[in-house]
Amino acid sequence: MHEPYFPIDPSAPLPLRATVSRRVRFEESDPLGIVWHGRYASYFEDARERLGDKFGIGYMAFFSRGFSIPIRRFAVDYLSSLAYPAAFSTEAILHWSEAMRLNYEFVIRAKDGTVCATGCSVHLLVNRDMSVQLTMPDFYREFLDRWRAGEHGLP
Amino acid sequence: MHEPYFPIDPSAPLPLRATVSRRVRFEESDPLGIVWHGRYASYFEDARERLGDKFGIGYMAFFSRGFSIPIRRFAVDYLSSLAYPAAFSTEAILHWSEAMRLNYEFVIRAKDGTVCATGCSVHLLVNRDMSVQLTMPDFYREFLDRWRAGEHGLP
Amino acid sequence: MHEPYFPIDPSAPLPLRATVSRRVRFEESDPLGIVWHGRYASYFEDARERLGDKFGIGYMAFFSRGFSIPIRRFAVDYLSSLAYPAAFSTEAILHWSEAMRLNYEFVIRAKDGTVCATGCSVHLLVNRDMSVQLTMPDFYREFLDRWRAGEHGLP
Amino acid sequence: MHEPYFPIDPSAPLPLRATVSRRVRFEESDPLGIVWHGRYASYFEDARERLGDKFGIGYMAFFSRGFSIPIRRFAVDYLSSLAYPAAFSTEAILHWSEAMRLNYEFVIRAKDGTVCATGCSVHLLVNRDMSVQLTMPDFYREFLDRWRAGEHGLP
Repeated sequence: MHEPYFPIDPSAPLPLRATVSRRVRFEESDPLGIVWHGRYASYFEDARERLGDKFGIGYMAFFSRGFSIPIRRFAVDYLSSLAYPAAFSTEAILHWSEAMRLNYEFVIRAKDGTVCATGCSVHLLVNRDMSVQLTMPDFYREFLDRWRAGEHGLP
Repeated sequence: MHEPYFPIDPSAPLPLRATVSRRVRFEESDPLGIVWHGRYASYFEDARERLGDKFGIGYMAFFSRGFSIPIRRFAVDYLSSLAYPAAFSTEAILHWSEAMRLNYEFVIRAKDGTVCATGCSVHLLVNRDMSVQLTMPDFYREFLDRWRAGEHGLP
Repeated sequence: MHEPYFPIDPSAPLPLRATVSRRVRFEESDPLGIVWHGRYASYFEDARERLGDKFGIGYMAFFSRGFSIPIRRFAVDYLSSLAYPAAFSTEAILHWSEAMRLNYEFVIRAKDGTVCATGCSVHLLVNRDMSVQLTMPDFYREFLDRWRAGEHGLP
Repeated sequence: MHEPYFPIDPSAPLPLRATVSRRVRFEESDPLGIVWHGRYASYFEDARERLGDKFGIGYMAFFSRGFSIPIRRFAVDYLSSLAYPAAFSTEAILHWSEAMRLNYEFVIRAKDGTVCATGCSVHLLVNRDMSVQLTMPDFYREFLDRWRAGEHGLP
């Protein structure tokens, strides 16, 4: 339906994945009875946080070490609407990158498996004062090493 | 329709007032087509900020001097619903208090003058580390003095 | 710390209760690092929905039968702040009433049991066109009967 | 900094533009003191509504005639952060298209002109039941005719 959000490198380690499930909340639905498009940023963030918790690279893991991961790009493709109080899942998929960036892809699925939306968010790894970080932080380098070695329990 | 949010002292200086006007936004309306009740906190905050700007006691006026004004109480009475894209106004009314607190009352009106909601927010004046502030900050003391002297261009 | 949100009738059936637990989300925290006061409406709604699901009186139970339960009053008392990414629970407590209204009380607790906030929401039982409902809907009458008979697995 | 959101056709009528200005609200800022990325959907919507009002193609113009314009794609590129209580403007730019779609581009600028973010939203013109609309609605055809004829007071 659309081009891949990130270039596919067949030789790269497989992406990391985490999924959260919940229901549409009343307040998230608009006068048409469907989820307002701006709410998907929250849905994606929930799944991204779950992945961060699962693999030790959550927001606080960076922040407590003096780094930040501001968002650089965010996109959503809306394929099928969600209505209150539907159950749905959001999958975060972290694609391999050796650059100082986190490339997240997202898939929102209805209970019957229908893909309702896809999207991405790209985050840069910087110092907490938002200046460019030139050398990879140790904890993140180790995270990448374990990922490449297949030690994250993939897929 | 309900008891006053704050005790009325007829000898106190008249309250300070500020009003903001805008339209209901699409995203603020729920599947019934009316504004979801939780959005009123934003409506009140907009009017409170306007009053703060108008009289020099906005959030930043406190914060830049090392104080904070955390909210202690918040209440809304819903009388008549608002629907997208209705125009409405929110009036913030700061009631006189010599205590270290800000007693705000709010009135939301439809374009035809119908009162749609009323409410209040109570804020405590504390140090930025959230400890109790024992002496009145100078700038706030001066603000109260001018208020009592009728120098805020009342009513 | 404050008066009861609702009059206490010692001879009334015990209140119904439901609790949800989760963490503060990044986006819910303000520049002071604590949850912005307006977000508590969502926290309360989550617990109210859980209670509605648990006892068969959720929003859709009313709506699918031609009724609505608009909010009439909402209040929060803020006692201790919540910061990202703290874990917390929200308990909804439905107090007995034979009137056409739902009287909800709420308690938000930090992981260590500290009460961070309390509050209430009052909802009126009306026809879907928002006109007053004069006779109790059958399903709600049966819900009250089971409640009085202690058949909801109380406390 | 990025490819154009939409293909540029030099022979097409010039895009339509509308701008709204306001300040960052306290609640929109996150613990880093900057606007949380998910809020930009609201900023864009405000500018899109202004453009819709200005040129007679707002959401209600479609809805009242039995059409809807669900969003198909949404993207933001974040270039420079916004902090409370900064003033900023959001410009909506509607690009010419003869297809049943609205191609909106957005530019958020700080008071000094710095571009803080750019983005886009793509909306499909469908029947209110979300089925594909095969023929152009009359009012929208007339809007396009006036646009091509330069009668919208461009640029």
